[in-house]
Amino acid sequence: MGKKVVTLGEIMLRLSTPGNTRFVQSDSFDVVYGGGEANVAVSCANYGHEAYFVTKLPKHEIGQSAVNALRKYGVKTDFIARGGDRVGIYYLETGASMRPSKVIYDRAHSAIAEADAADFDFDAIMEGADWFHWSGITPAISDKAAELTRLACEAAKRHGVTVSVDLNFRKKLWTKEKAQSIMKPLMQFVDVCIGNEEDAELCLGFKPDADVEAGHTDAEGYKGIFQQMMKEFGFKYVVSTLRESFSATHNGWKAMIYNGEEFYTSKRYDIDPIIDRVGGGDSFSGGIIHGLMTKPNQGAALEFAVAASALKHTINGDFNLVSVEEVEALAGGDASGRVQR
Amino acid sequence: MGKKVVTLGEIMLRLSTPGNTRFVQSDSFDVVYGGGEANVAVSCANYGHEAYFVTKLPKHEIGQSAVNALRKYGVKTDFIARGGDRVGIYYLETGASMRPSKVIYDRAHSAIAEADAADFDFDAIMEGADWFHWSGITPAISDKAAELTRLACEAAKRHGVTVSVDLNFRKKLWTKEKAQSIMKPLMQFVDVCIGNEEDAELCLGFKPDADVEAGHTDAEGYKGIFQQMMKEFGFKYVVSTLRESFSATHNGWKAMIYNGEEFYTSKRYDIDPIIDRVGGGDSFSGGIIHGLMTKPNQGAALEFAVAASALKHTINGDFNLVSVEEVEALAGGDASGRVQR
Amino acid sequence: MGKKVVTLGEIMLRLSTPGNTRFVQSDSFDVVYGGGEANVAVSCANYGHEAYFVTKLPKHEIGQSAVNALRKYGVKTDFIARGGDRVGIYYLETGASMRPSKVIYDRAHSAIAEADAADFDFDAIMEGADWFHWSGITPAISDKAAELTRLACEAAKRHGVTVSVDLNFRKKLWTKEKAQSIMKPLMQFVDVCIGNEEDAELCLGFKPDADVEAGHTDAEGYKGIFQQMMKEFGFKYVVSTLRESFSATHNGWKAMIYNGEEFYTSKRYDIDPIIDRVGGGDSFSGGIIHGLMTKPNQGAALEFAVAASALKHTINGDFNLVSVEEVEALAGGDASGRVQR
Amino acid sequence: MGKKVVTLGEIMLRLSTPGNTRFVQSDSFDVVYGGGEANVAVSCANYGHEAYFVTKLPKHEIGQSAVNALRKYGVKTDFIARGGDRVGIYYLETGASMRPSKVIYDRAHSAIAEADAADFDFDAIMEGADWFHWSGITPAISDKAAELTRLACEAAKRHGVTVSVDLNFRKKLWTKEKAQSIMKPLMQFVDVCIGNEEDAELCLGFKPDADVEAGHTDAEGYKGIFQQMMKEFGFKYVVSTLRESFSATHNGWKAMIYNGEEFYTSKRYDIDPIIDRVGGGDSFSGGIIHGLMTKPNQGAALEFAVAASALKHTINGDFNLVSVEEVEALAGGDASGRVQR
Amino acid sequence: MGKKVVTLGEIMLRLSTPGNTRFVQSDSFDVVYGGGEANVAVSCANYGHEAYFVTKLPKHEIGQSAVNALRKYGVKTDFIARGGDRVGIYYLETGASMRPSKVIYDRAHSAIAEADAADFDFDAIMEGADWFHWSGITPAISDKAAELTRLACEAAKRHGVTVSVDLNFRKKLWTKEKAQSIMKPLMQFVDVCIGNEEDAELCLGFKPDADVEAGHTDAEGYKGIFQQMMKEFGFKYVVSTLRESFSATHNGWKAMIYNGEEFYTSKRYDIDPIIDRVGGGDSFSGGIIHGLMTKPNQGAALEFAVAASALKHTINGDFNLVSVEEVEALAGGDASGRVQR
Amino acid sequence: MGKKVVTLGEIMLRLSTPGNTRFVQSDSFDVVYGGGEANVAVSCANYGHEAYFVTKLPKHEIGQSAVNALRKYGVKTDFIARGGDRVGIYYLETGASMRPSKVIYDRAHSAIAEADAADFDFDAIMEGADWFHWSGITPAISDKAAELTRLACEAAKRHGVTVSVDLNFRKKLWTKEKAQSIMKPLMQFVDVCIGNEEDAELCLGFKPDADVEAGHTDAEGYKGIFQQMMKEFGFKYVVSTLRESFSATHNGWKAMIYNGEEFYTSKRYDIDPIIDRVGGGDSFSGGIIHGLMTKPNQGAALEFAVAASALKHTINGDFNLVSVEEVEALAGGDASGRVQR
Repeated sequence: MGKKVVTLGEIMLRLSTPGNTRFVQSDSFDVVYGGGEANVAVSCANYGHEAYFVTKLPKHEIGQSAVNALRKYGVKTDFIARGGDRVGIYYLETGASMRPSKVIYDRAHSAIAEADAADFDFDAIMEGADWFHWSGITPAISDKAAELTRLACEAAKRHGVTVSVDLNFRKKLWTKEKAQSIMKPLMQFVDVCIGNEEDAELCLGFKPDADVEAGHTDAEGYKGIFQQMMKEFGFKYVVSTLRESFSATHNGWKAMIYNGEEFYTSKRYDIDPIIDRVGGGDSFSGGIIHGLMTKPNQGAALEFAVAASALKHTINGDFNLVSVEEVEALAGGDASGRVQR
Repeated sequence: MGKKVVTLGEIMLRLSTPGNTRFVQSDSFDVVYGGGEANVAVSCANYGHEAYFVTKLPKHEIGQSAVNALRKYGVKTDFIARGGDRVGIYYLETGASMRPSKVIYDRAHSAIAEADAADFDFDAIMEGADWFHWSGITPAISDKAAELTRLACEAAKRHGVTVSVDLNFRKKLWTKEKAQSIMKPLMQFVDVCIGNEEDAELCLGFKPDADVEAGHTDAEGYKGIFQQMMKEFGFKYVVSTLRESFSATHNGWKAMIYNGEEFYTSKRYDIDPIIDRVGGGDSFSGGIIHGLMTKPNQGAALEFAVAASALKHTINGDFNLVSVEEVEALAGGDASGRVQR
Repeated sequence: MGKKVVTLGEIMLRLSTPGNTRFVQSDSFDVVYGGGEANVAVSCANYGHEAYFVTKLPKHEIGQSAVNALRKYGVKTDFIARGGDRVGIYYLETGASMRPSKVIYDRAHSAIAEADAADFDFDAIMEGADWFHWSGITPAISDKAAELTRLACEAAKRHGVTVSVDLNFRKKLWTKEKAQSIMKPLMQFVDVCIGNEEDAELCLGFKPDADVEAGHTDAEGYKGIFQQMMKEFGFKYVVSTLRESFSATHNGWKAMIYNGEEFYTSKRYDIDPIIDRVGGGDSFSGGIIHGLMTKPNQGAALEFAVAASALKHTINGDFNLVSVEEVEALAGGDASGRVQR
Repeated sequence: MGKKVVTLGEIMLRLSTPGNTRFVQSDSFDVVYGGGEANVAVSCANYGHEAYFVTKLPKHEIGQSAVNALRKYGVKTDFIARGGDRVGIYYLETGASMRPSKVIYDRAHSAIAEADAADFDFDAIMEGADWFHWSGITPAISDKAAELTRLACEAAKRHGVTVSVDLNFRKKLWTKEKAQSIMKPLMQFVDVCIGNEEDAELCLGFKPDADVEAGHTDAEGYKGIFQQMMKEFGFKYVVSTLRESFSATHNGWKAMIYNGEEFYTSKRYDIDPIIDRVGGGDSFSGGIIHGLMTKPNQGAALEFAVAASALKHTINGDFNLVSVEEVEALAGGDASGRVQR
Repeated sequence: MGKKVVTLGEIMLRLSTPGNTRFVQSDSFDVVYGGGEANVAVSCANYGHEAYFVTKLPKHEIGQSAVNALRKYGVKTDFIARGGDRVGIYYLETGASMRPSKVIYDRAHSAIAEADAADFDFDAIMEGADWFHWSGITPAISDKAAELTRLACEAAKRHGVTVSVDLNFRKKLWTKEKAQSIMKPLMQFVDVCIGNEEDAELCLGFKPDADVEAGHTDAEGYKGIFQQMMKEFGFKYVVSTLRESFSATHNGWKAMIYNGEEFYTSKRYDIDPIIDRVGGGDSFSGGIIHGLMTKPNQGAALEFAVAASALKHTINGDFNLVSVEEVEALAGGDASGRVQR
Repeated sequence: MGKKVVTLGEIMLRLSTPGNTRFVQSDSFDVVYGGGEANVAVSCANYGHEAYFVTKLPKHEIGQSAVNALRKYGVKTDFIARGGDRVGIYYLETGASMRPSKVIYDRAHSAIAEADAADFDFDAIMEGADWFHWSGITPAISDKAAELTRLACEAAKRHGVTVSVDLNFRKKLWTKEKAQSIMKPLMQFVDVCIGNEEDAELCLGFKPDADVEAGHTDAEGYKGIFQQMMKEFGFKYVVSTLRESFSATHNGWKAMIYNGEEFYTSKRYDIDPIIDRVGGGDSFSGGIIHGLMTKPNQGAALEFAVAASALKHTINGDFNLVSVEEVEALAGGDASGRVQR
């Protein structure tokens, strides 16, 4: 067993149309379970760590199915509270070429959104842990969930646990004003901050240097932001992915990391075709956590994370179902796709 | 075109596991849309009537898919209000033999539950209508929906429309005390009351004569209740189905009607195997509406309704996709199932 | 290799709705190929005979797929003419309980309906053959096909081949007057005549003794008809199945044979559930051909045929995919359905 | 509700192999309904117009399924005549890379091919209509259908309806000589003529300037043809798409329009991968109709049409299931395919 | 958490044809994992126990998939050795009516068949355990596996663990002579012996009183055998199920238990239709283990086990995915199959 | 009928995950049958030759299904011996972009691996044959299979049959030392040797000039090897494909041939996307056999083979289901992928 990693957040029922069919055409939905921090937990379990996902889920069979999905891939579910009314849902339609994928959220009133501090014993959860990860989605779900996030961060710090955040601004969940009022005070607990320029602007109030909406990103433009973030919040690392969106099925993908001393930009991957983009960012977070826990330097950590998340784009579902060996083969340079017999 | 029939209620997204798989086994859900009053509207459209279903649905593609499901089968959707956040959901697992089917509801906060009177012009809706049908589920959804039900009933009466109700008590939606406080005042608008002894007890406060939970029902026991109901509320007809539940896949099925003068008990059908029980009661309501609008007497109307709903048990989904010809062939005595070439 | 058996007729593309879905619900059709005489050929191939199916099919891929379906199960396709425009189609919806299965034919103008005598060398086809089988469907397809049937029968007789017919009246293809005008002259070539009372009446003009539409059949009632048929046409054997139709999914099944001296009535099978009724009669024909070619007496032949066709009702598709061993296990008395490990 | 648009033609049952399987491999066919003018009607309904599709379909369930497919997407089916024997069929195998898609037609003798003038009241149909669209396929189906096309055009003119045609030459349906003898006299009714150089040559007798078969097209080459067409037939607009076929899954796509004064060439889209090419031209026709009815100039109309039809290539089935908002987002420049949350 | 239960054996990849298709028809196989003792472990985990399944599985993804299937349902996989070449396979074709289901085994040379004592630390495994279960399949797999079984039994006894065996004779794996030479010496470790008359004869050499092959069983006939078994081997309990095989889809099901003082015969269930028979016996073993660990007397334990295994026949796959509440509802008398809302 | 072609080898059950799902995600496997020499036989049958595939398969239904798969596509199965225990299996997961496809073999102990010389009459098999093809996989399966290969080659030479080999080194089956000890003596029987540089090195001991693992190949580098191979073994032709692996879904593809006098390099195809790479090499062998048997020169033969195998990459399953006409259309230059109507 590797390290003990804890993540906190929501796991949703994902209902996606088969293949590339549109919502209005579909007579069935493919069912998987996923959500930002759950996805990170699965990545960590796949890399051999003792990964705990913390959430609340209803006692009924849909709640149980979410638990089972995590257990199947080796995630520890001991700290999942059971109760509440519903499992949050998101509907997914997968695009192609110039037609974008679409997500419709139906996550209000989920069990975790209505969970209380009494549902969790964060000291027991953080006891012996090496790493705690959360994302900006968790506090955005509800005020109660924001409070849980703060309690978890405090417990993590009491137990000397490294804390990472993926800023992950979601405009359907909160405004940038609300986001900043919640997120900025939480930054004091964070060691590793993951987020692109847009997230940095919307969650933390930094002014962006590049038009990310344009689908083109400029690694140089990130340096200034990274330095400001480091200065204001005292992060140990600032990290960002840089996605080029050519179409729904063709992206460029690389990342950058800054440890306060050096900037490192990863190899770039050309991903064509993309099988499933959802969870791409989470797979990067999972990769950087593994990388920073086990690799000799930030560059090696980042290359692992970028290769891991490039592979995620070729895998259906939110979870990044790859092994350390597969990630390292790609990071080591074999992108030929030759049949492995 | 036949008569103009209006129904009011909720249409939900139904997510069912394929075949007889259990919730925890399923990697996909079959998708149909359905709900008590929507199912009745589809039956009426199938029988050649101009059937309008009134509800509120979100503008997004899941809401649109519900609209499309109705349009596909010829239901008029002109009076469906668009807006709100979510489409109500129910999860269905289909049982077999002694394993019961299971339904998990996730319908709180749906668009229709949060709809306002301003969303509907009930005078326009009832203008020229021949029949208005609702069920006890509609007012149970929310206080707002109960108010809409009252407004619709009042408008129906203003326009001289015949009103039917399927009492349909749902213990997950309200208590019997709440149900009676809402339902009893609404009975003044009702001409045709459909409901078994359990419904009569829970919605209207009548004391049952038989243990319906035992799966065996006694037609004789219904007569007293029917007479009391007729006396207290002045219905034109009281109607009930009588189901014998031998197993999840084998039921007996018949019905009874009382017009204040005579009791009529229908033929009994032995249904084995059952393909899909959900919507069985609604298909009966659809059948009795058609029967009472077009048949010479209550007996003929009831035989149509029972045959229609027996057929429903052999059809996947909530909707009863049968034609007048098919129902009448069965009501006329051909249950041999010989291939129709 | 066993005997050389030749059958002549049409093989159609069968488009059936999955499971028990109705035509109007279905987003996909299951695809198999089948037709009366093709089904008989497959049965004979399964029992180890050298079975040739003779027809005409278009050169395109749908025609080729029909050829491939036959080859897959070992039927010889050497005498299939290639050309013409279309493969005949039938749509199938599978019923349940009291809902009957439905067949919609779209077979007019098929390649075999428009084939010419020049497409076939019947002397080459019948050379060395032991048995030739056709059904009343073949001459009903078109006048050209009726002519082909006559030519095939004449060639069979020239080569000393035993000839069997399954009368199989189809009211969508011809009237009883037309049927009798074509079928009666063809009876001179027939050694073994298969057909129930209804067929005997409609194709050959015999008056029925029982109401077959009622779903109940009376073995005694058949004796008179069998004797008349034998007398008028000089058949060596007259054979009929007797189906009791309780529902679309539950039938009784037995058969009768008469060799001019003795009547033999088979064991009766109670089939519940039926998986696929289509091809049941053809599987009986296949079984009686095998039985009469290889068994010591008509009783043993009939028991083989009835067991074979009872099994057919449990198998999807038109073809009866069972082995001699499986049929004989059932005919020998093991209907317990215990798992064969 | 927008404008009243009428289209006349055939809707077929489309049977396509799942994914990229070949005809000979396939155990099931995906089922959708489609056909040139039906596809245009669906596009118009999606854009908010009152779209009527006029055809004849059998009364049986396959005919009904075609009606339901149209109703589902909001097309008005009031003027569909019911009767006749069969629904035309086309089989589709979807190619990939250098393997082309294949279509096998089985549409002869369909209900619309054998329909009579008595089946339709074209004055009622055209009453109040804004636009009437047909394609060169409709008169090619049969002489009777050609007569119906003429009657519809005449009625349209009587009612002051704008008429568009998509020339759409189909060599399996008629020769160029036959096509010209029918099509040229019909051009007097046409306001908007859609068709590439090949169509202009084969249907109208214009000599092409470019080798369209080569898969490369030259916008310049179209100008001369457009001017000749305008001059000879007095069209208000001549329009053509220009497809570059790199492979079955990768195409370039743009279009040209000429109003007698100016030529306008649209933006070019690179479509990779193509999900389903069939109906691409029809989606363009639907787009240009919407564009010319609602946009300030021919350029804006054309950009809408090209974006709409580019999106069609990413959608399964014949119908272009996109909204005005989606088309305008693409026409407005967002082809990045970024997930819409 | 409940008790610690350990089971030892093989988990196989099960490849089954969808629905009722035959092997020769099938283009896909449904994939689940299962095997006698693994199935028992899943039952115990479902009932809230800490269930460990002990086996050996290859390191590759097929081996991992078997591990994941167990983890998904909460089975502890800590003691599964990893290595070896292959996962054993069984092919399953599901019968209907008189057509039996068929199993083809391809399990030779599996990882567990070739495992060594060095792969397992049985003292660690049995430490703190309450119950150890194995079946007659485990020692039948190979001589090495028989040796492992003996070592596990010895360790169980060292740690005071209750031991149960399901005799489960499999004629494809060994002869009765071989079986008896291995099984009889192992009986000294056994507290609870599960097995019908046929197993008692073939594994332990007792002479049967009834013809089990006939599909009818006689509870009385078991008493003598049970007494002999108790006497010879000193079991605490002898238990057997009694199956009546009417057809592949219709069985009767009950059971008997004897504690050396009293015989108890359970309620009888009529199971129609059967969805999946495989694992029926294992679900009974899982039920009796739970029953004997938690119920006040052998009768209550047996009723739990019989109800649990009756339910198993309605569930796809080898695993019995039911909760204690569901089993107790049925054991408590509710077999009506009414929808649980 | 064309030429008589014989191939010898193993046909396996291929279990592949649907779409791009990973092994650990998959609840079903797609089932096809395939193997190097069986694939070549299917190609030859598709091109109109009388193709015999020689192997041994168990008598059970999985063995029969493999036979049926061959018969379906017209391969002659008369010389397939029946017996033995198992059908070899390979599991396939299809990659995408930079994620490679994965193959897990489970083929040890298959019927053909344990077959004896007594199972085959090679003189009868080679009687009248024009071509015999085998690959380096056949002798690698087992020593017994190597012996069969030798016997088959000797019989071929006795009957004047042209012999081709596809060297096809498989590192999971043998070492290069073992391979060379078996393969080199067999080269005396070979007329046409197919294999890339890696195969030439590992099977025959030639030193490679290029790093094929790098995914880039250099046609020039092959010339020296070809000349050496020709010189040492006296082949009539040496042939190799040259694959450029850009990703799992994008390859470049061409080939080279040398007849001792001239080198000919084919056209290059850019294949994007690849649907199924497996069997690509075998489809090339099938194409070169057809080409050398029917084309006027080695260049024409090679262009046929390369076009055939380029098409294979667009077809699911091991078999190359294309016709001569389709291959020649591509070889003739039409790679536009335009819809064939």
